[in-house]
Amino acid sequence: MANIQVNKTAHPFDKSRFEALLNRRFFYAPAFEIYGGVAGLYDYGPPGSSLQSNIIAEWRKHFIVEEHMLEVDTTIMTPAPVFETSGHVARFADWMVKDLKTGEVLRADHLVKNVLEARLAGDKEARGLAGAPPKEDDKKKKKKDKAKPTAVKLPDEVVVEYETILAQLDNYSGPELGELCRKYDIRNPDTDNEVSEPQQFNLMFASSIGPTGQHPGFLRPETAQGHFLNFSRLLEFNNGRIPFASAQIGRSFRNEISPRAGLLRVREFTMAEIEHYVDPEDKRHERFSEVRDVELDLLDRHTQTAGSTKVTRMKIGDAVDKGIVANETLGYFLARIHQFLLKIGIDRTRLRFRQHMANEMAHYATDCWDAEIQNSYGWTECVGCADRAAYDLSVHSAKTGHPLVVRQALKEPIITEKLVAEFNKKTFGKTFGKDSAVIQTIVGGMDEALLAKLQGELAQGSTTVTSSDGREFKLTPDLLTIEKKTFKQSIREFTPNVIEPSFGLGRILYALLEHSFWSREQDVERGVLSLPAVVAPTKVLIVPLSAKPEFDPLVKEVSAKLRKAGIFSRVDDSNTSIGKRYARNDELGTPYGLTLDFASVAKRTMTLRERDTTGQLIGDIDEVIGVVTELVNGTIDWAEACRRLPAYDGVQSVE
Amino acid sequence: MANIQVNKTAHPFDKSRFEALLNRRFFYAPAFEIYGGVAGLYDYGPPGSSLQSNIIAEWRKHFIVEEHMLEVDTTIMTPAPVFETSGHVARFADWMVKDLKTGEVLRADHLVKNVLEARLAGDKEARGLAGAPPKEDDKKKKKKDKAKPTAVKLPDEVVVEYETILAQLDNYSGPELGELCRKYDIRNPDTDNEVSEPQQFNLMFASSIGPTGQHPGFLRPETAQGHFLNFSRLLEFNNGRIPFASAQIGRSFRNEISPRAGLLRVREFTMAEIEHYVDPEDKRHERFSEVRDVELDLLDRHTQTAGSTKVTRMKIGDAVDKGIVANETLGYFLARIHQFLLKIGIDRTRLRFRQHMANEMAHYATDCWDAEIQNSYGWTECVGCADRAAYDLSVHSAKTGHPLVVRQALKEPIITEKLVAEFNKKTFGKTFGKDSAVIQTIVGGMDEALLAKLQGELAQGSTTVTSSDGREFKLTPDLLTIEKKTFKQSIREFTPNVIEPSFGLGRILYALLEHSFWSREQDVERGVLSLPAVVAPTKVLIVPLSAKPEFDPLVKEVSAKLRKAGIFSRVDDSNTSIGKRYARNDELGTPYGLTLDFASVAKRTMTLRERDTTGQLIGDIDEVIGVVTELVNGTIDWAEACRRLPAYDGVQSVE
Repeated sequence: MANIQVNKTAHPFDKSRFEALLNRRFFYAPAFEIYGGVAGLYDYGPPGSSLQSNIIAEWRKHFIVEEHMLEVDTTIMTPAPVFETSGHVARFADWMVKDLKTGEVLRADHLVKNVLEARLAGDKEARGLAGAPPKEDDKKKKKKDKAKPTAVKLPDEVVVEYETILAQLDNYSGPELGELCRKYDIRNPDTDNEVSEPQQFNLMFASSIGPTGQHPGFLRPETAQGHFLNFSRLLEFNNGRIPFASAQIGRSFRNEISPRAGLLRVREFTMAEIEHYVDPEDKRHERFSEVRDVELDLLDRHTQTAGSTKVTRMKIGDAVDKGIVANETLGYFLARIHQFLLKIGIDRTRLRFRQHMANEMAHYATDCWDAEIQNSYGWTECVGCADRAAYDLSVHSAKTGHPLVVRQALKEPIITEKLVAEFNKKTFGKTFGKDSAVIQTIVGGMDEALLAKLQGELAQGSTTVTSSDGREFKLTPDLLTIEKKTFKQSIREFTPNVIEPSFGLGRILYALLEHSFWSREQDVERGVLSLPAVVAPTKVLIVPLSAKPEFDPLVKEVSAKLRKAGIFSRVDDSNTSIGKRYARNDELGTPYGLTLDFASVAKRTMTLRERDTTGQLIGDIDEVIGVVTELVNGTIDWAEACRRLPAYDGVQSVE
Repeated sequence: MANIQVNKTAHPFDKSRFEALLNRRFFYAPAFEIYGGVAGLYDYGPPGSSLQSNIIAEWRKHFIVEEHMLEVDTTIMTPAPVFETSGHVARFADWMVKDLKTGEVLRADHLVKNVLEARLAGDKEARGLAGAPPKEDDKKKKKKDKAKPTAVKLPDEVVVEYETILAQLDNYSGPELGELCRKYDIRNPDTDNEVSEPQQFNLMFASSIGPTGQHPGFLRPETAQGHFLNFSRLLEFNNGRIPFASAQIGRSFRNEISPRAGLLRVREFTMAEIEHYVDPEDKRHERFSEVRDVELDLLDRHTQTAGSTKVTRMKIGDAVDKGIVANETLGYFLARIHQFLLKIGIDRTRLRFRQHMANEMAHYATDCWDAEIQNSYGWTECVGCADRAAYDLSVHSAKTGHPLVVRQALKEPIITEKLVAEFNKKTFGKTFGKDSAVIQTIVGGMDEALLAKLQGELAQGSTTVTSSDGREFKLTPDLLTIEKKTFKQSIREFTPNVIEPSFGLGRILYALLEHSFWSREQDVERGVLSLPAVVAPTKVLIVPLSAKPEFDPLVKEVSAKLRKAGIFSRVDDSNTSIGKRYARNDELGTPYGLTLDFASVAKRTMTLRERDTTGQLIGDIDEVIGVVTELVNGTIDWAEACRRLPAYDGVQSVE
């Protein structure tokens, strides 16, 4: 009885129920809600904050601790010159259009997409091919600026044109988007007004540092630049050796034009970024063998270019061997990202790694893969993993004159021989006076072959060189000697390449919540979040039968013992039935519950409830604490717990 | 030998050595250093980041977990109306003056302070009372705008005037500071130019949300408002009960006019804030008995007003009983703050709690105490603990119309009786037509006494009421009855008060570093950071004799076993002597070291080194891992470790 199978797919995913749960349980909510809210800004409530900090703690363990990364914590406020150099001031922008009458601002590509998609939907409807019409409550909640389909049949060739445009929308420049708006009479769907020519809008929040207003600053749109600017210090901290990685978890900001899609597109968000510095000539990874056999669902750029989105399940070792993934280090991180996402509870069948196509990749990147997670909004990029090559370190180094390079002692010094011209200091200047410099420049510019010719002629007695204005100078062995010399290079200096896994924690958190949500087969209103114990906000709920003082000593004892075992528990002694209290905590994703009743007081027994199955076991208090500790730590599973403790089927119903 | 006493005060605190260590080991560094840096912005390197996150983890445990606080994570970017309501737009400002020729901006109060202090120092020097002149290297590093004393004797009465001004500098308004500048000819010490009249400069960083530029926003200067705006949701999450507390750890921003003093006054910083909501009529705390006997060094406002800074060591229970600390909840948090600071390593003798004087307290606060930590810059406020009363919740509630209140079922309903006038619906309207409303308004506005009079007259047959324009209306018992009715109030509605402990984590971190720093008696160049294991960036350093592969299996084994025990270790196999490697890690505050040498390979022994004493013990590898685990977890101390393991005094010197 305690170990029953659970049907989590009895009810289809119901977004409105899901959103109502997140709102009711205060996972997150629009920030400044009582002031009317601001699009793209969200506050996390207690369960959302805990879930986020548990994901972060696991991330730290999985990446920073496991790989001995160097953690940094750099500032958000950044002086403008940094982003001028990095290219963000010039290029970190979206195209926007304005409603010519209301002044409302819309993102140009989103507008074109919405309107054309709506027309195609209307065409389908007119052709009798439409799906079910939207439900009433969907209509009511219809987002602003979402174009409404009306049943109008389009000419066949227009349908083809629209579909072609939509398939390559990311390829259009701002002016081209403007042309599309004119050509296809694309208007603001809310007002039916025409829109302006697209203008670039930089997505960084601007501010000004200090009291004079003369020092413009931006809020960082990514944490990466803070790593790069500290590269020399980090390298020194790592005793001058590479490869190594820096890591940072922190807030970033993007002033989105019109944020939509809840936590998936926000103006302020928490990121976790790794910058892994490697030798550009050796991108192998020491621990690649450990992940070689990890299987990933890959969607490479060739498949996409061929118009398909079919993934290929492949061992990462094979993907690197075949050159599908550019190098071992990139492959290593893809596998580690995959492992991390599964560990925190992402559904493996809704996770894929999509390679950037040539034209969507940042100009400096050499290869880039996104971990995309499927959710009700589609496939969403949640982790980017790019090989940024030497771009960032090079540009900052060039701008500041501060070398951001690695200097490595060569194991084998490189020995080279070459001809070197030496002028006789005593006689040369006297002989040629102010022409000395001219002659030195001519000889200094000669390659090995010319020098060899000169050497031969000098051995014959003399040679002649000619200046650019046609004057000839005769040189003799007493003025100039040319000899072979040996050079030994024992240091190699190079700018490392950077492999960057970059995690959008809010997106991951949202996708995880969707993947965890389901409703009980017998009652669709009873939502459950099946979060793994490792990230669940509360691991164990302690439920005394009532708030009566006779349970207090036991509640305190159990709390204290769990705390000592390192397990975060909460007590729910609110004035409602045990069943209701459990239902409430199923919504919070609490995996285990402990019930204390009169039998606990009399006989020191306690029941243990598992969230997904609602199965219950019973045992001596200390025994149960031992079992729940192992469950939370993942050293045993529920099946094993059921073998260790008898099922609870006492007369007192606690469910 | 292993358990020797250490003299940590052999050398006086040397700030330049201390700062050199922090810089060399990359605890933190000026942000954007390769771009020339920006005042008041700092990046934390690996040891600084770890130290900070360990302090945060301990804070979470000590406050959030222990007290079941509700953690939130709210946005930094805040729309302007929120800070207009909270008062920050109008009042969160400092007074600044401009150099009339160069335009350089100075904080007005700091300018007056610097110049007058310099003149007093010059006067002392002229009177032959000066201390030792500053050392050469101090002079070289002299900060800009720090006025240089010149030996000029001042008239006695001027000395008194200056001293009086300095003692109450916080009391001067901006215009008054301007008067002081004119009266005493206070100029920019860098240029000797006159300065402008003081102007207010708001310390919030301003930005703009969204693409239209029409939505001004600010970066929050504290995390508190994010808690308050979510009060209703938090209360609901807590099942409608108070007291409870919300907690938040996050970044805040203050655009300081001219930041100085390293991490103590910065433009971007991490805070940890608690908002504890209490019944204004009952500020007792459930767990106050647990801290009653905690002794604090208190500096109350009466002592300060009397011109003294002498602290009184007192039990917090007594302080609350005597009314020195306003209430139990405030007292409880002062004690808990004290315990937290000691736990992470703050020197108890350099910690005091200073009460705000009446005039320095925010206008809404009813009592406020700062935990001040002494360091080389003086006594610095590191934690503020204020009773903010109902101010914030009230103003946001009034502004938005959203009630931020608690509704409590009264145990005993409050029964009240009062006279109620009732008009006869059938006859009244017919009798008076459109005058009905006028009469109802007159009667509705009557107090108990007037109603009683009316009731008496009606009992006599009739009464008359007069409208404001002098018209008289005759009322009879068939039109109006006045009767005593009983009212029962079973819900009490009130705005809770807020007790706010607010931690500046960067300041605490800096003070902790100063308190932890000392130099070895035998060699002043060998700096040590005696950080407690609980916050030390690395707990255990593993030091193989060399990077030779024969040590690899043991290094891996020891690392893995420590990781399993939950202990964060690092390996240092760099190509330098063991002594140098230990010295480097003494600078990083690593409390324990494990040395693996040829004996480890042959006999599976390992030595354990303690940072402060440099004492070494030896034992079987697993036995040593057991001991070091207990040391790190704080279940045993070094003296106990010395009882468990023999001292190491082998022939091979590892130090």
